[in-house]
Amino acid sequence: MAVDLTELIDDLPLVDHHVHGATAHDLSRRAFEELITESDRPVPAWMTTFDSQLGHAILRHCAPELGLDPHASPEEYLARRARLGAGEVNRRLLGATGVGHYLLETGHRGEEILGPGGMAEVTGVPVDEVVRLEQVAEQVAASGCAAGAFARRFAEALWERTRTARGLKTVAAYRHGLGFDPSRPSAAEVAEAAGRWLAEGEAAADHAAGEPDGGPGAGPYGGSGSVPERRLGLVKDAGPGTAGWRVTDPVLLRHLIWTGLDRGLPLQFHTGFGDPDVDLRRADPLLLRGLIELAEPTGVPIMLLHCYPYVRGAGHLAHAYPAVHFDVGLGVTYTGARAAALVAESLEVAPFAKLLFSSDAWGPAELHHLGATLWRRALARVLGGFVNEGEWSPAQAARVAAMVGAGNARRVYALTAPRP
Amino acid sequence: MAVDLTELIDDLPLVDHHVHGATAHDLSRRAFEELITESDRPVPAWMTTFDSQLGHAILRHCAPELGLDPHASPEEYLARRARLGAGEVNRRLLGATGVGHYLLETGHRGEEILGPGGMAEVTGVPVDEVVRLEQVAEQVAASGCAAGAFARRFAEALWERTRTARGLKTVAAYRHGLGFDPSRPSAAEVAEAAGRWLAEGEAAADHAAGEPDGGPGAGPYGGSGSVPERRLGLVKDAGPGTAGWRVTDPVLLRHLIWTGLDRGLPLQFHTGFGDPDVDLRRADPLLLRGLIELAEPTGVPIMLLHCYPYVRGAGHLAHAYPAVHFDVGLGVTYTGARAAALVAESLEVAPFAKLLFSSDAWGPAELHHLGATLWRRALARVLGGFVNEGEWSPAQAARVAAMVGAGNARRVYALTAPRP
Amino acid sequence: MAVDLTELIDDLPLVDHHVHGATAHDLSRRAFEELITESDRPVPAWMTTFDSQLGHAILRHCAPELGLDPHASPEEYLARRARLGAGEVNRRLLGATGVGHYLLETGHRGEEILGPGGMAEVTGVPVDEVVRLEQVAEQVAASGCAAGAFARRFAEALWERTRTARGLKTVAAYRHGLGFDPSRPSAAEVAEAAGRWLAEGEAAADHAAGEPDGGPGAGPYGGSGSVPERRLGLVKDAGPGTAGWRVTDPVLLRHLIWTGLDRGLPLQFHTGFGDPDVDLRRADPLLLRGLIELAEPTGVPIMLLHCYPYVRGAGHLAHAYPAVHFDVGLGVTYTGARAAALVAESLEVAPFAKLLFSSDAWGPAELHHLGATLWRRALARVLGGFVNEGEWSPAQAARVAAMVGAGNARRVYALTAPRP
Repeated sequence: MAVDLTELIDDLPLVDHHVHGATAHDLSRRAFEELITESDRPVPAWMTTFDSQLGHAILRHCAPELGLDPHASPEEYLARRARLGAGEVNRRLLGATGVGHYLLETGHRGEEILGPGGMAEVTGVPVDEVVRLEQVAEQVAASGCAAGAFARRFAEALWERTRTARGLKTVAAYRHGLGFDPSRPSAAEVAEAAGRWLAEGEAAADHAAGEPDGGPGAGPYGGSGSVPERRLGLVKDAGPGTAGWRVTDPVLLRHLIWTGLDRGLPLQFHTGFGDPDVDLRRADPLLLRGLIELAEPTGVPIMLLHCYPYVRGAGHLAHAYPAVHFDVGLGVTYTGARAAALVAESLEVAPFAKLLFSSDAWGPAELHHLGATLWRRALARVLGGFVNEGEWSPAQAARVAAMVGAGNARRVYALTAPRP
Repeated sequence: MAVDLTELIDDLPLVDHHVHGATAHDLSRRAFEELITESDRPVPAWMTTFDSQLGHAILRHCAPELGLDPHASPEEYLARRARLGAGEVNRRLLGATGVGHYLLETGHRGEEILGPGGMAEVTGVPVDEVVRLEQVAEQVAASGCAAGAFARRFAEALWERTRTARGLKTVAAYRHGLGFDPSRPSAAEVAEAAGRWLAEGEAAADHAAGEPDGGPGAGPYGGSGSVPERRLGLVKDAGPGTAGWRVTDPVLLRHLIWTGLDRGLPLQFHTGFGDPDVDLRRADPLLLRGLIELAEPTGVPIMLLHCYPYVRGAGHLAHAYPAVHFDVGLGVTYTGARAAALVAESLEVAPFAKLLFSSDAWGPAELHHLGATLWRRALARVLGGFVNEGEWSPAQAARVAAMVGAGNARRVYALTAPRP
Repeated sequence: MAVDLTELIDDLPLVDHHVHGATAHDLSRRAFEELITESDRPVPAWMTTFDSQLGHAILRHCAPELGLDPHASPEEYLARRARLGAGEVNRRLLGATGVGHYLLETGHRGEEILGPGGMAEVTGVPVDEVVRLEQVAEQVAASGCAAGAFARRFAEALWERTRTARGLKTVAAYRHGLGFDPSRPSAAEVAEAAGRWLAEGEAAADHAAGEPDGGPGAGPYGGSGSVPERRLGLVKDAGPGTAGWRVTDPVLLRHLIWTGLDRGLPLQFHTGFGDPDVDLRRADPLLLRGLIELAEPTGVPIMLLHCYPYVRGAGHLAHAYPAVHFDVGLGVTYTGARAAALVAESLEVAPFAKLLFSSDAWGPAELHHLGATLWRRALARVLGGFVNEGEWSPAQAARVAAMVGAGNARRVYALTAPRP
């Protein structure tokens, strides 16, 4: 008889090691559709984002949480969602994830998005913080800073900002791509690059005053956030008070990363799939090999996020280098019925101690819910396949599920075990 | 009980949005073997191209259409094919595709290959044309043209040539690779590049006079078309009367593409898998990101063809950019029993409104037949899997099959719906 | 009723066309753990390399050969292994591979590893040799050589060393990456590069005297072989008497390759997955396209090894170019329960005459055993799937299994058929 791991995996109290806040706002159809895609372009009139793996997964797995049949229509779903209200939707969808600990990346936390406190209140589980390096740098710049003082000011702000944080995050993949010189820039290089940035940024900030999003380099659609619902999506890449201060200089990005390595917390890298700001060719985690080797003496865990479609390359890095860990979050959510393919690829050459779970959800609680639900279903299918093909024992499958779902993250981020 | 979508998908009147003509000639074994591979090298004596996924698929799916059992031997198959004659073979194989509309890329249409009229006659369904930019440019050059007049002459020829066409096609991936500067070249740059090309081309054309194929840059085997059956394969990359006029200059290729964007028809790009002329590393559709962004204001649909093995990258582009669409044609035919793997990857992050069907068949009608047959079988297997694993509803699967098989192409190319 | 190809494929007398010797030494737990990973970094205290696909496969498939139940614990397994002793373990594990002919790459053969004679004795089947170009060059350099004489001395040594060899191997992917200028370097370029290398190498060899491993370029952990068991792993990249002579200059690597092409034996290229020395981005077999085209007139078979995760690109090269063959060895061993995914990808666009079997095993006989066992299971699953989905006939599956498992290698390496 076929072994079914579903129940065992459904019962795991996951650690979501990279996630953002849920929105506490009710959402129009347009806003909802724009928040279930990574594209920042307006959704063309001839399509709906419900016609996607993510859309189908929402109707399949979230509709029952709102009291509808699976495979409800988008109209039924959105009507029920509106009737329940965002608060009740959040309670239901977040309450059913079975996540036991969230590590919340707070690089942008306008009033639309729940912060650590709000997330802890809704979910009833511990929420710790992951701090985005670029946001701290942009806040330093926006607060006014001399070029020669930037490195010191940034370090001070980073230490202050991360007193209780569990990890750091960099979006260098979006800002420049990962193909940068991996070596630590000199103090003089940093001061010079900071001088250029601060001069340009002040001009841009003046120009951007009153616009909460965008700024230089945000792309052709980056500054068009005139509709509140639209802004909800666009705020992804900007923090309050940092309009116009978008750090893209590779010298500065490297400096942020190396200062982050000094700080010593696990350092998360966005890699692979994301919004149109990312040049996917320049987001290949294999580009980080030089940095990984230079950073080895620090012992800092390097956490590769998402990795789609570079899952196998990420697995190679996790195999070769003790510090490297990775996940297939975000990709799992967006590939829906195909999520098992990604999870399976992540279980090839990587040691099982190097793989983690994340959702990378941002905004609608459907993304938090599906990040966990689709991952559980995919893992149960993949590990169940290994067992039923006679390759693994059920005990091995259970052990690996517990490691990937929670144990590895508890070790890397030094989280205490949950109370039984 | 397991849901089976086979019948539903078999009944779809497909739009084959990128295909070439079938050959009306009888084929020797050697000619046939050389036409069921993308390689232009002679088939070594120690192998047969029937020992391939495509070969097995021909014997499995085409043999019954010719009255043989599935899995006939190559010898039986070719003997039956010869006895029936090319006309009857075409009627049977093309008649059984269930394609409702062909968009025929006519970049080379010697007497060996059926043109739009011939294809319409054999198939009994509408056949519209897709025009290859490079062929139009080469015809302008071959007809004699001053460097300074090239841009104007090319535009005039393109508008004239595409009066009733449904789309454009570029083979820049073969000629230079896709890693070119995406910006529109200036008039002066175009005139200068045209001057170089026209001077070189005249010399080459003199040299190539009498040889229907090849010319500079066609590769070590590109000029060896002395056997008629061989030429049938090689003519893929040259048109009548354009011997020696092979446009490879990146400035000119960019100019052709930008003029194509001015023309406003959906613009097809060869990407990924193809004959040895292609450097697969330089045929990655992700290399088109810069051009895609620059072309966004034009609103012209960008159609990425084939994409093997870069299917997931193509899906990311289709997710991020409203204009980008793609297919997994050609790869489906050549991977045979593995076609479902490609179709499954194409259904990951891409919105379902962005995926199309094509066969990219050229020559033997087996390729037209298998393009449709293997795609239908693969799609039924993949979507049936989603339904039977409890992720999609049957209605969702039917809707997506109809979109990908025909509806998306009808929208993009503004085709009228078939009469019921 | 489902067709099961297991027995048929289990009975194939495989040709392992790229393998190294088994170790004749007993192994401590630490040594064993470090030999079942490609990483040369110390295994962190918080993990065990048994928590991997390879670890699970050892406990599943090798434990029964040692008289234990499948899925024994690592402790049980290692205790039984120690009790039996390396000799008995080798007899059992090597004796059960069903390999009929080994092509042994002997680029490093300290007393820890069995050479061709030792392997023939343990296995009772023919063992032929594959010679590593870089090792021959390093031995020439270490023996003392004038720069101007290097090319002649290397050619003489190569011809002498390969009098009975069946093939050549290059690790240029590790030493420089595959993105080198593919053209043959001139005699002057070679002499100049040899001069630089010989001068640097003498200094390094003086420095490395007494250290059996490492030398310049061996990486941060390359010289830390103070523990004998550790050295067993590290000796992979150095030969006896060549300490300090690591050839990395791209001119010299190209010269070695072109001299290898002159020699005329099938030439194996490491590509893809391997230890941290490899930059996976620079080990993509598609980078060899230029060399493949330049080498076409020689007719020398080009054998792409491993190819993980670039299996589809390797398949494209094998499709396009008659000389190109490939395998998915090493990756099969390291992906364990996922090996069928790699084997399936290798059976997409490549003609079936172009695919081979190898294990790339080195050291513990578990790797030799699993290379064959996992490949057989994966192939039976993949081909069985093609048959049971109605795409292939059982006869076609049997024919392809025999070609890939042995026939293609017998043809390429001109091996005589086994006696019945």
